[in-house]
Amino acid sequence: MELLEKRIQADGIVKKGNVLKVDNFLNHQMDIELFNEMGKEFRRLFADKEIDKILTIEASGIGIACIAAQYFHVPVVFAKKAQSINIDGDVYRTRIESFTHKRVYDVIVSRKYLNSGERILIIDDFLANGCAVRGLIELIECAGATVEGIGIAIEKGQQSGGRELREKGYQVESLAIISQMDEETGTITFSHA
Amino acid sequence: MELLEKRIQADGIVKKGNVLKVDNFLNHQMDIELFNEMGKEFRRLFADKEIDKILTIEASGIGIACIAAQYFHVPVVFAKKAQSINIDGDVYRTRIESFTHKRVYDVIVSRKYLNSGERILIIDDFLANGCAVRGLIELIECAGATVEGIGIAIEKGQQSGGRELREKGYQVESLAIISQMDEETGTITFSHA
Repeated sequence: MELLEKRIQADGIVKKGNVLKVDNFLNHQMDIELFNEMGKEFRRLFADKEIDKILTIEASGIGIACIAAQYFHVPVVFAKKAQSINIDGDVYRTRIESFTHKRVYDVIVSRKYLNSGERILIIDDFLANGCAVRGLIELIECAGATVEGIGIAIEKGQQSGGRELREKGYQVESLAIISQMDEETGTITFSHA
Repeated sequence: MELLEKRIQADGIVKKGNVLKVDNFLNHQMDIELFNEMGKEFRRLFADKEIDKILTIEASGIGIACIAAQYFHVPVVFAKKAQSINIDGDVYRTRIESFTHKRVYDVIVSRKYLNSGERILIIDDFLANGCAVRGLIELIECAGATVEGIGIAIEKGQQSGGRELREKGYQVESLAIISQMDEETGTITFSHA
């Protein structure tokens, strides 16, 4: 998606350790007009899919998922990263290792909000090694629901998450796929499927 | 806001310890059509205010804030509950005690995304004792920005947060104000300002 690639070129900052900072417009400050264009693009890319619900994970997936949901006319459920006293014990649970935060989270979704037979679209901000998405897939499959597709804002193509998911047969649509980043020069190169 | 009150009556669950569960439509599963009506209502309630940015706090404020932002045509910034390696050291920082989670969080916003002179609207899902909102106000005032208003989905009128903020002169607009909840009968009563 050209609009997103241009924005990453303009405002993304390449940091040590293969980290891309896009907190100017994507995951700390959020450009809602950009999110609307991304939501329309997700609808176009998954035009042939019937979607009942969008599943994302807190925190930075929520804004993108909520704006996108307007184009699918479905509710959003976000998986939570720790047990809260406000969540019933009756949850689907998995563990996700965060590339960014270098730690492992317990991730839960209430059993009430993922149901057998539901057709789920996963939406998240980043796809790198694929741990978060694999965790969400596990929650969906535990519920007897189906993964209709995976919509990602930025995929780090140098890491294997996207390739592995596509090899398993999932429809993964990333609005921008980074093929190379250079922390010395700040250069970011995109690949186009 | 009648639509929200009706939804709370229909789907809210009163739990021990003055806890209201609204995770069916507000803070775990999210009804985006309802959020759009809430966003329009916030715009109506703050019609006379010039807003440059919406500030909320992760995770459950993000969805409401992003949908509402479409009616204000402004970006959203969400305060983060813990230091991430992806956030620069250069942050505004405060501590917030969570009523729901019975713990204290460090809360941060990058200095880049709150600027002197900006007119900020705070949006959050719940207002009870007011700790979260007071923390956000502190971050805004540290930045030399101004708090133009505080938009809340559900205020627990039995707790003092809303009253105290109004006494200090802030425009607090809560779409539903609960005056009483009975965990035995499940009855929820609303007050109208």
